[in-house]
Amino acid sequence: MEFGITFKGFVEADRARYLVRAAEYAGFDYCWFYDSHILWRDCYAAIAMCMEHTKSMRFGPLVTNPDVRDWSVAASMFGSLSKQSGGRFDLAVGRGDSSRRVMGFKPATLARVAEFIHKTKAMVRGEEVVYGESPEPVHFTWAVGHEMPAWIAAYGPLALKTAGEHADGVVLQIAEPSLCKWFTGQCIEAGTKAGKDMSGFRSMSCAPAYFGPKDKAIEAVKWFPAMVGNHVADIVEKYGAESGVMPPAFTSYIEKRRGYDYSKHGQSDNPFLDFITPDVVESFCVLGEPKDHIAKINDLEDGGVTQFNIYLDSGEEEDIIARYGREVIPAFR
Amino acid sequence: MEFGITFKGFVEADRARYLVRAAEYAGFDYCWFYDSHILWRDCYAAIAMCMEHTKSMRFGPLVTNPDVRDWSVAASMFGSLSKQSGGRFDLAVGRGDSSRRVMGFKPATLARVAEFIHKTKAMVRGEEVVYGESPEPVHFTWAVGHEMPAWIAAYGPLALKTAGEHADGVVLQIAEPSLCKWFTGQCIEAGTKAGKDMSGFRSMSCAPAYFGPKDKAIEAVKWFPAMVGNHVADIVEKYGAESGVMPPAFTSYIEKRRGYDYSKHGQSDNPFLDFITPDVVESFCVLGEPKDHIAKINDLEDGGVTQFNIYLDSGEEEDIIARYGREVIPAFR
Amino acid sequence: MEFGITFKGFVEADRARYLVRAAEYAGFDYCWFYDSHILWRDCYAAIAMCMEHTKSMRFGPLVTNPDVRDWSVAASMFGSLSKQSGGRFDLAVGRGDSSRRVMGFKPATLARVAEFIHKTKAMVRGEEVVYGESPEPVHFTWAVGHEMPAWIAAYGPLALKTAGEHADGVVLQIAEPSLCKWFTGQCIEAGTKAGKDMSGFRSMSCAPAYFGPKDKAIEAVKWFPAMVGNHVADIVEKYGAESGVMPPAFTSYIEKRRGYDYSKHGQSDNPFLDFITPDVVESFCVLGEPKDHIAKINDLEDGGVTQFNIYLDSGEEEDIIARYGREVIPAFR
Amino acid sequence: MEFGITFKGFVEADRARYLVRAAEYAGFDYCWFYDSHILWRDCYAAIAMCMEHTKSMRFGPLVTNPDVRDWSVAASMFGSLSKQSGGRFDLAVGRGDSSRRVMGFKPATLARVAEFIHKTKAMVRGEEVVYGESPEPVHFTWAVGHEMPAWIAAYGPLALKTAGEHADGVVLQIAEPSLCKWFTGQCIEAGTKAGKDMSGFRSMSCAPAYFGPKDKAIEAVKWFPAMVGNHVADIVEKYGAESGVMPPAFTSYIEKRRGYDYSKHGQSDNPFLDFITPDVVESFCVLGEPKDHIAKINDLEDGGVTQFNIYLDSGEEEDIIARYGREVIPAFR
Repeated sequence: MEFGITFKGFVEADRARYLVRAAEYAGFDYCWFYDSHILWRDCYAAIAMCMEHTKSMRFGPLVTNPDVRDWSVAASMFGSLSKQSGGRFDLAVGRGDSSRRVMGFKPATLARVAEFIHKTKAMVRGEEVVYGESPEPVHFTWAVGHEMPAWIAAYGPLALKTAGEHADGVVLQIAEPSLCKWFTGQCIEAGTKAGKDMSGFRSMSCAPAYFGPKDKAIEAVKWFPAMVGNHVADIVEKYGAESGVMPPAFTSYIEKRRGYDYSKHGQSDNPFLDFITPDVVESFCVLGEPKDHIAKINDLEDGGVTQFNIYLDSGEEEDIIARYGREVIPAFR
Repeated sequence: MEFGITFKGFVEADRARYLVRAAEYAGFDYCWFYDSHILWRDCYAAIAMCMEHTKSMRFGPLVTNPDVRDWSVAASMFGSLSKQSGGRFDLAVGRGDSSRRVMGFKPATLARVAEFIHKTKAMVRGEEVVYGESPEPVHFTWAVGHEMPAWIAAYGPLALKTAGEHADGVVLQIAEPSLCKWFTGQCIEAGTKAGKDMSGFRSMSCAPAYFGPKDKAIEAVKWFPAMVGNHVADIVEKYGAESGVMPPAFTSYIEKRRGYDYSKHGQSDNPFLDFITPDVVESFCVLGEPKDHIAKINDLEDGGVTQFNIYLDSGEEEDIIARYGREVIPAFR
Repeated sequence: MEFGITFKGFVEADRARYLVRAAEYAGFDYCWFYDSHILWRDCYAAIAMCMEHTKSMRFGPLVTNPDVRDWSVAASMFGSLSKQSGGRFDLAVGRGDSSRRVMGFKPATLARVAEFIHKTKAMVRGEEVVYGESPEPVHFTWAVGHEMPAWIAAYGPLALKTAGEHADGVVLQIAEPSLCKWFTGQCIEAGTKAGKDMSGFRSMSCAPAYFGPKDKAIEAVKWFPAMVGNHVADIVEKYGAESGVMPPAFTSYIEKRRGYDYSKHGQSDNPFLDFITPDVVESFCVLGEPKDHIAKINDLEDGGVTQFNIYLDSGEEEDIIARYGREVIPAFR
Repeated sequence: MEFGITFKGFVEADRARYLVRAAEYAGFDYCWFYDSHILWRDCYAAIAMCMEHTKSMRFGPLVTNPDVRDWSVAASMFGSLSKQSGGRFDLAVGRGDSSRRVMGFKPATLARVAEFIHKTKAMVRGEEVVYGESPEPVHFTWAVGHEMPAWIAAYGPLALKTAGEHADGVVLQIAEPSLCKWFTGQCIEAGTKAGKDMSGFRSMSCAPAYFGPKDKAIEAVKWFPAMVGNHVADIVEKYGAESGVMPPAFTSYIEKRRGYDYSKHGQSDNPFLDFITPDVVESFCVLGEPKDHIAKINDLEDGGVTQFNIYLDSGEEEDIIARYGREVIPAFR
């Protein structure tokens, strides 16, 4: 099991400089940054900075999208960060919901996400690449053959299929073991059907982790299911009725939560927030004492998850990182 | 007099890490990077890296252009680098000749260069900004009011005027004192006419510097007038006949060099390389023993130059930086 | 009020590297290391390392003694650390109880402590110095005039007098406000009598700080009064009966704690541990919620304390440092 | 062939910080510091600092001696530096000529040098050690079993024998290939006789290296044979007449140099400086163009030398380090 941390919003530079060292010392393998250049600064400047303060930790955006930067500009940044860090850069891509919506644009298609991955991976490798917007082929003569791992963020059936077929891993923003198992399975099934060797396919479960009494913890992390809720509702609305398309646990789970309120669906936000009860928060996140964290991460591992990635910015980050290093991560090494 | 170094192509990361420290120790104030993301990697990844290894040195692209990145993406990078370095970021902008041509695009207009500067400076400051490509106004709530200095690269009359009116300084890729004086004067005149206080206007002379016997030095740096020659020829062709528009020294200088060969202008590259005689190389660059460097930089200072910026990548970089620190820079402090 | 942290035993190098950055970010001014080269490694190697990861934080041994290193060797280390850190080194000296006893030696006299301070300060300044063990005068031609602040660790009347007369500050290993007030007053009185300007005299109160429920906190830090107890008992035994020599609060406090058990004094350790009741632990340390920490440090400040120095190594160090930065130190700025 | 640099006197901290990075980038394996705490600062503070700016480079004093620090204090520093650098510390020991003489003391015996090595190596390993000055055995419970390589500086027969029998390598302050061969052979012979496996025995040749015209180079490095001359003269005086004890090349070489001047030996310094002719300087050092350096280092390698260690502080250090990286070291990799 790999461990990651994600800076959701942005921390002060001087704090990030020591938190990544603290996380590397604690045994975390990855540090991810939301790629949202208007809301929270440019994540690549922060990644380049943090790389200078770590030795083996890997970095990447979580997630970028194919529309915010010209592909040669994006790939040059990916390749430059790979090169100056000794290859410690991963790419994670989504359709660009928040990052593009804040500027008034629509998300990209999944086909475009897949093409973006293939084209930027090839540029980082040093191949000559032709892509839509560029009149001339692009070739980074300075590239040194880095094989940049790529992930796709997914919940819905088509995104899971795209991740399985075109990426090295899937990013799941939820830490509910049975759902993670179902999502991961969908990816592997799609990849296998497409003839890929899926034995090394990776699955990342992202969620806040928090220690201490349940009520305090739930209060600190309830922003997470509220954020995820939009995605969940979108998907249930779109696929909920189709048998076998969505994970049975997911469907029944939503049904149970919303009961007769289902008729109000779409009229206001309330029905979606209704289902964010304490046990939903607990189900989506990793809370409690260290032994509870270990137990849940073990369940995630049983469901095929290969990386547990903590969404920080719920407070007490120093303590969470240090306690993972002392009391949680050693149980998986 | 300020001193700068510029990495033309790119150095290996581990070498850049110590060269910027060496340069800061030697007394250099600035480190600039060519912004050419396809030819030489992404300069902002390198800038972010080098910032972590310096304390007071300032950094910037030399030069970027308004068309390679969406303006909010560009400004987010500028503002992020400013923030994480404690305000050590300058912007230098040109029309994008090489960077855009390599992708098959045309250079930007000078009006667009000026607008790019005003809009990105405002975003970095933290103001709400509307610009052409974005359906929604952009506002970096995380910006902390950094006043990012901006420079414009110029040779021709309109570019010099734009620099004087819209920038905090002008970038001159040549170290010929009388020409630098004329160029700088044009900027100040234009700015003054536009009602700006030009007392703090800055003028940067960029060129290779090299120590040792003249013939070895000339061989090492002759790539520079060859590169500059294209710009010079363009301008002479466009403005040469108009009395008073071009610097008299510049015009007569070119005439003297090319004589009757002028008729062949435009047929091949030869006429332009013809005039790159050893004394042209010496005139454009800073060569010889430390006392010769000091004398020439003094002449540049008399011509209104406020920063001498060494284009590296002619070899012996470690020695050039160290000798500037020991034998040249102290003469100006 | 200045704030410090002290590494009692030693932390792993990679952990120390980020903890000092975390502490500097949190607003701590000082980082001290026990100087006990056999039990816990050489503190100067650790100090030199930590200096490379901080910008303004000051460092020093807490405490060294005059007998463990030849004075020129000691002063060369002090001066070298001062020079390579830009003057961020303080000296704190004691009689060498633990450090010398572990090797089978006796502690130094207070006169020797005072002489050690004067001689090493002079060497660090760059003066030619004659001292007992060296046949030749010692002169560091490389010294650049650093004025190294020096502190003396004291509890007893003579040590307090020596600190007041010969040092820039006193180190008090206790955080009981009325005692700190009495101790500090003794130093200032002695210094004033000796004709020194005592307006800048400094007083450091050292003790563990811990957050959370009282019973958990007391369990975590009870090692501290046990360690301090030996010193306290020594002093009470030596001076307890002499009216006016010891702080009245101290005497009555010990009396109240030990009552009729006093007759058993010296027979076993028990009588000394008897008085380490929960309220003694609380009295010696800084415990509770952030508001409790602020209140106690305010009381210390009222008693003349100028630096509160947290003895770490009670666990949860990351959390203690971060919470001081967020919730305690801002109340004093 | 390993490569090292040595800071003879001391460089400014900010310069040392980048020079070690430059040297590591260039391919140097070792960085050594003269251990002379009065003349040039404490070398261990500088070593600890430089370790933070390097990844694989090894460090050590060149040379320390058994009398300047209590052995537990010395070993604690060695072990602490080993631990915080991941084992990148070597020990090199001599009799303490300059370091002790400057304080008015006599050098240590070779038996004491050998014992110092065995005892401090054992302490760094974590063993319980009894040594002369300490009433109690010393045990670093924090030691983690580092096997610290130890070198002895030698010219004379007994020192060479001691190095062969008791150390992992010999330090030779001269770069004359036939002498290095003879010296190294003496060590190996002695070690073999004592039953040691000498297959991994190391031999370090130390001398200034300098590029450029011979006359300028000789002027820059002639301080070196002048410094070495004292040792050479001492040894020739002591052993010169004994057949087979000194290297034949050494004896004849001195004879040739001094001829009838030998009668004046001991009256003044002149006779010793007489023999420092340009070809002696060239013979002792590594001078000329890169190809000359490569040729001489090849000869040293043929003579059994395993590390060529450049004594810096002859000027142009940045250039020497960079050119070794570009033009000399690659010939040996």
